[in-house]
Amino acid sequence: MDKSKFTNHLPLKDVTISDTFWGPIMERVRTQVIPYQWEALNDRIPGAAPSYSIRNFKLAAELTHPEQDYGVPRDIGFGGPVFQDSDAAKWIEAAAYTLVWHPDPALEKTLDDLIDVICNAQQSDGYLDTYYIVTGLEKRFTNLKDHHELYCFGHFLEGAIAYYEATGKRKLLDAIIRYAGCIDRNIGLEPGKLPGYPGHEVAEMALVKLYNITGDKAHLALAKYFIDQRGQAPLYFEKETERNKNDFYWKDSFVRYQYYQAGKPVRDQHTAEGHAVRAAYLYSGMADVAKATGDDSLLEACNNLFNNIAERQMYITGAIGQSAYGEMFTYDYHLPNGTAYAETCAAIGLAFFAKRMSAIAPRAAYADVLERALYNGIISGMSLDGKAFFYVNPLEVIPESCLKDRNCHHVKIERQKWFGCACCPPNLARITASLGSYIHSSRQGAIFTHLFIGSSAKFSPNGANVLVKLETRYPWEGKVEISFGVKEGTKFTYGLRVPLWCKKFSLSLNGADIPYKIEDGYALMDREWKDGDRLTVNFDMGVQFVRANPHVRENIGKTALTRGPVVYCLEEADNGKELFRLHTGSPGDINVKFEKDLLEGVTVIDVTGKREKDWAGGGLYGTDETVFEDRKLRFIPYYAWANRSAGEMAVWVNK
Amino acid sequence: MDKSKFTNHLPLKDVTISDTFWGPIMERVRTQVIPYQWEALNDRIPGAAPSYSIRNFKLAAELTHPEQDYGVPRDIGFGGPVFQDSDAAKWIEAAAYTLVWHPDPALEKTLDDLIDVICNAQQSDGYLDTYYIVTGLEKRFTNLKDHHELYCFGHFLEGAIAYYEATGKRKLLDAIIRYAGCIDRNIGLEPGKLPGYPGHEVAEMALVKLYNITGDKAHLALAKYFIDQRGQAPLYFEKETERNKNDFYWKDSFVRYQYYQAGKPVRDQHTAEGHAVRAAYLYSGMADVAKATGDDSLLEACNNLFNNIAERQMYITGAIGQSAYGEMFTYDYHLPNGTAYAETCAAIGLAFFAKRMSAIAPRAAYADVLERALYNGIISGMSLDGKAFFYVNPLEVIPESCLKDRNCHHVKIERQKWFGCACCPPNLARITASLGSYIHSSRQGAIFTHLFIGSSAKFSPNGANVLVKLETRYPWEGKVEISFGVKEGTKFTYGLRVPLWCKKFSLSLNGADIPYKIEDGYALMDREWKDGDRLTVNFDMGVQFVRANPHVRENIGKTALTRGPVVYCLEEADNGKELFRLHTGSPGDINVKFEKDLLEGVTVIDVTGKREKDWAGGGLYGTDETVFEDRKLRFIPYYAWANRSAGEMAVWVNK
Repeated sequence: MDKSKFTNHLPLKDVTISDTFWGPIMERVRTQVIPYQWEALNDRIPGAAPSYSIRNFKLAAELTHPEQDYGVPRDIGFGGPVFQDSDAAKWIEAAAYTLVWHPDPALEKTLDDLIDVICNAQQSDGYLDTYYIVTGLEKRFTNLKDHHELYCFGHFLEGAIAYYEATGKRKLLDAIIRYAGCIDRNIGLEPGKLPGYPGHEVAEMALVKLYNITGDKAHLALAKYFIDQRGQAPLYFEKETERNKNDFYWKDSFVRYQYYQAGKPVRDQHTAEGHAVRAAYLYSGMADVAKATGDDSLLEACNNLFNNIAERQMYITGAIGQSAYGEMFTYDYHLPNGTAYAETCAAIGLAFFAKRMSAIAPRAAYADVLERALYNGIISGMSLDGKAFFYVNPLEVIPESCLKDRNCHHVKIERQKWFGCACCPPNLARITASLGSYIHSSRQGAIFTHLFIGSSAKFSPNGANVLVKLETRYPWEGKVEISFGVKEGTKFTYGLRVPLWCKKFSLSLNGADIPYKIEDGYALMDREWKDGDRLTVNFDMGVQFVRANPHVRENIGKTALTRGPVVYCLEEADNGKELFRLHTGSPGDINVKFEKDLLEGVTVIDVTGKREKDWAGGGLYGTDETVFEDRKLRFIPYYAWANRSAGEMAVWVNK
Repeated sequence: MDKSKFTNHLPLKDVTISDTFWGPIMERVRTQVIPYQWEALNDRIPGAAPSYSIRNFKLAAELTHPEQDYGVPRDIGFGGPVFQDSDAAKWIEAAAYTLVWHPDPALEKTLDDLIDVICNAQQSDGYLDTYYIVTGLEKRFTNLKDHHELYCFGHFLEGAIAYYEATGKRKLLDAIIRYAGCIDRNIGLEPGKLPGYPGHEVAEMALVKLYNITGDKAHLALAKYFIDQRGQAPLYFEKETERNKNDFYWKDSFVRYQYYQAGKPVRDQHTAEGHAVRAAYLYSGMADVAKATGDDSLLEACNNLFNNIAERQMYITGAIGQSAYGEMFTYDYHLPNGTAYAETCAAIGLAFFAKRMSAIAPRAAYADVLERALYNGIISGMSLDGKAFFYVNPLEVIPESCLKDRNCHHVKIERQKWFGCACCPPNLARITASLGSYIHSSRQGAIFTHLFIGSSAKFSPNGANVLVKLETRYPWEGKVEISFGVKEGTKFTYGLRVPLWCKKFSLSLNGADIPYKIEDGYALMDREWKDGDRLTVNFDMGVQFVRANPHVRENIGKTALTRGPVVYCLEEADNGKELFRLHTGSPGDINVKFEKDLLEGVTVIDVTGKREKDWAGGGLYGTDETVFEDRKLRFIPYYAWANRSAGEMAVWVNK
């Protein structure tokens, strides 16, 4: 492992975003999603299924401290799925991130009050999971496979760390550190412990984050144990299922324990398998542990899995998880458009993984996947007003199929207000609110820019402070201006990602050519930077007619339009019904324009394509030649679909 | 309604099949399927799930006549699904048909013995359904929606009629006539009766068949009542569900009571909906009742439904029922290839319907559907050795999808030995064994030939006997010779179907031109026929590159090869993996040859097409042009697929 390539992403507090594209999305998250989510967690959304998340904490606190009274009837029972604690934890995390870039004393007070309740629910040995506190502690740790205790623990950690980093307040962090101690005493290979690991991963990456704060090797060791023990024979989940007579839902499916990525040791896993969100979270944790421990075999496994996803199982939008059944991966090159599950959370998980791989080594293949997911399959999950959400992000929608074809039953034609299982909106909130920490990473003497997001960031490559400012109209325009603020000339390497989609670019410093070398897809400029140095890069933003590898059955004969990082689609609102009858042909005229009043401002692509004409004589089967008519086609960015009327949508179009 | 066009199909006993294509299939049914099925009905197939069908009859007979002892423990309970009686009934029907063309005293003895058992199970009021006889008669007629009593009754009738017609023995027929009386006393609009109808149709057509034997108007009236009452408000099934607290499985599906074709009156049904087998059986019964009663509005409904299927919801193989969920229709022009349910029984049901419509009026559109189903989607259900069966007949198979894509979970890559719900093999047996009655229909002064199957048939157009003999190598060759045997010159109209797929044909009598007129797709020759007259028709059998209507999303840009009535497919055994990468291009060389040693003798089509080459650089998405290489493609008849090694198959191929 080439540790000289290791970088760390800049902490959120060192980056201020001023981007015309992402700024409004972040504001939407801060002003719409987070307040709405708080209401939802408190079961105050009329007509929506209750979350029970806060109620569970209050009930658990009352049961733990009988002197306390939150006004929750003590016999009311646990509400919602077993993993409801994680919803509050994810909300804490997202809200904490916004406090970094938008201080808000009222929100901070709400958080402090919630944290008081949560901490009051904690048991004397550190245990903290309201499901078992309410339903019976004697059953805790009896179903790691499906009962999400360690998943909730991981999200508690993420929330506690974010809040600590935002405010410096340690109350929740210390509580969860105690919970980590409790888990460590109960789970592990030592005699008397359960040799288990999370059924739904996330704790792995959270523990490495914790270790980076505490420096406590026990925290890293627990993360490493979760990774190393996973899938070892005899299979823990198999034994646990037998011992505790738990259900095993995947018994008769080909996926079996690989649903949990727990059917074999992680280093023997070469193909992304099972539940896509779990998989992406595991792989992120593997990357964190590989980096923290310098584990070559683990890094190799990460690269195998990353390549398998990026080269065989990823939709062009950065979405992953082809199958609604099990919300999971299916197999290589199987990328059905209309029945895709493509969960928002899974694309977010893939972004986590790609970010972490970028930190291990800046390599364009990693950041390209991150960017692809961010500009397409992640933000498609939220409406332009921030009030409605997709779980499922298919690449083709025919409304009648969603109603009448059971295989598309999971596909919604309109974003929904909220969900009983509310994982996607909070996940969207936490990645968006922490986007500042995705832009750059640095190491001694070098900084790398992975994403082109208007922002200013400070870092200290060699002790001295450097301010890096990005100005751009990306993704609508390919010009990015990077200016450097230094007290005095400072030597460091600046690495600028050149996206793999970009076939042509120009680079200049203060209006003149600047020498650079390309390494792993980054343009490296190694020099002494002066205050006010202004680097200008122009990425060619030509419209591309992308094809899928011929192994992909679904896209044979089809093309998808992209421009820069943005994937486009056809919508019924612009192009009428039966989008599948449209062909791009070989369009001579391609008209690209920014429409400021359309869909909050998007660049559209208009081309003259063609449409298969109706058969004059009707009938279902015939031998007449296909007859075409010219047809103007309008492509809009995929992420913005379903923000007008409900209707058809297609990313892949006949050539 | 133009009653002058009514015809009746020739009874089975008047037709002898000597066809080189169908003869071996019928022999396979007689020598393999029927004996195997008898063993299955008696739970004597090692390793297969027991049927319990015969055991249920024996148990019911013992319970009805405590003095009898069939050696079945009286507390053993009912076995198998509620409709298991129908399996025995279907076997009786198929076996009876074979007795017509292949007398077999041992088989007849077996049948007589079985009929004795069945009749011993009958209740004193005529009731005869082993499920309720065994589980409690007080519950009978409480779940017409899902408990298949009237379905089993219908199959009893079909079996009893077939056996009566084969042997002249009335014992079973009389028993089932008594059962019809019992149903008539319990179900109907009169006070004190239940205003219900069958949840799974078949009794409608069986009752019209019975009426044609008995002339008893009550039998026709019951059939007409079942048709007319179906779907009338208030919905019987809705009331029955409420009253008896029955489950309603389709409550949350768009299909609801239309799953049973019972959500609205049949005359208001314009689109084929719900369970495909039930639908086709209902429509067949509607056609029978329309013809028997001269009901114009009912005939109009039949034509609407027939056209909806043939022009919007039928696979090119004659298969119907797009969705595995509910084994049902989905919506117009939705014809997915890889996830098709396309149940063998549904194609058989469509053949029943088409046959009946042909009887009402000879019209090529009807017989074309009949022929399409027979040569493709029906016989694909049986292996070439008669020992294994498909329920599901998809138009595209990728083995890995069957394992890993839940949407293809119902698709088998190899025919199975037998099924727990064993509807398809007996249904295949009964249509194949009675094929003689599908070839011609006649009316006063006229005979119409619908199918080109080597055979001799006798009919009496004007009192005098006429022998019509067909000799042909159809479907491999387009030449059909029809010779007439008459004592003396006899005047009648001979109508010969000209298939809609046929773009060119020649017709001659005794080597000379013969005048004819085309009416509704039949070449009509109205003359005095002499003994030894020999009519020769030559249908052009050119290979056709068929397209689907552009409303069919799945087949845009694709073609299917047909030759005569036979639909072709590509198989992995001949063409390698990833059939979806193959294109026909515009093949200059099309090579058609009969391979006598391949797949029991089939005509294959070889063309030079092309294949998309691998991407040199790998990767999932790119902008390079598609590169093709020439590739020999071999097409085999669809019905014969999966008779070599398991592998991919595709009917629709890229152009």
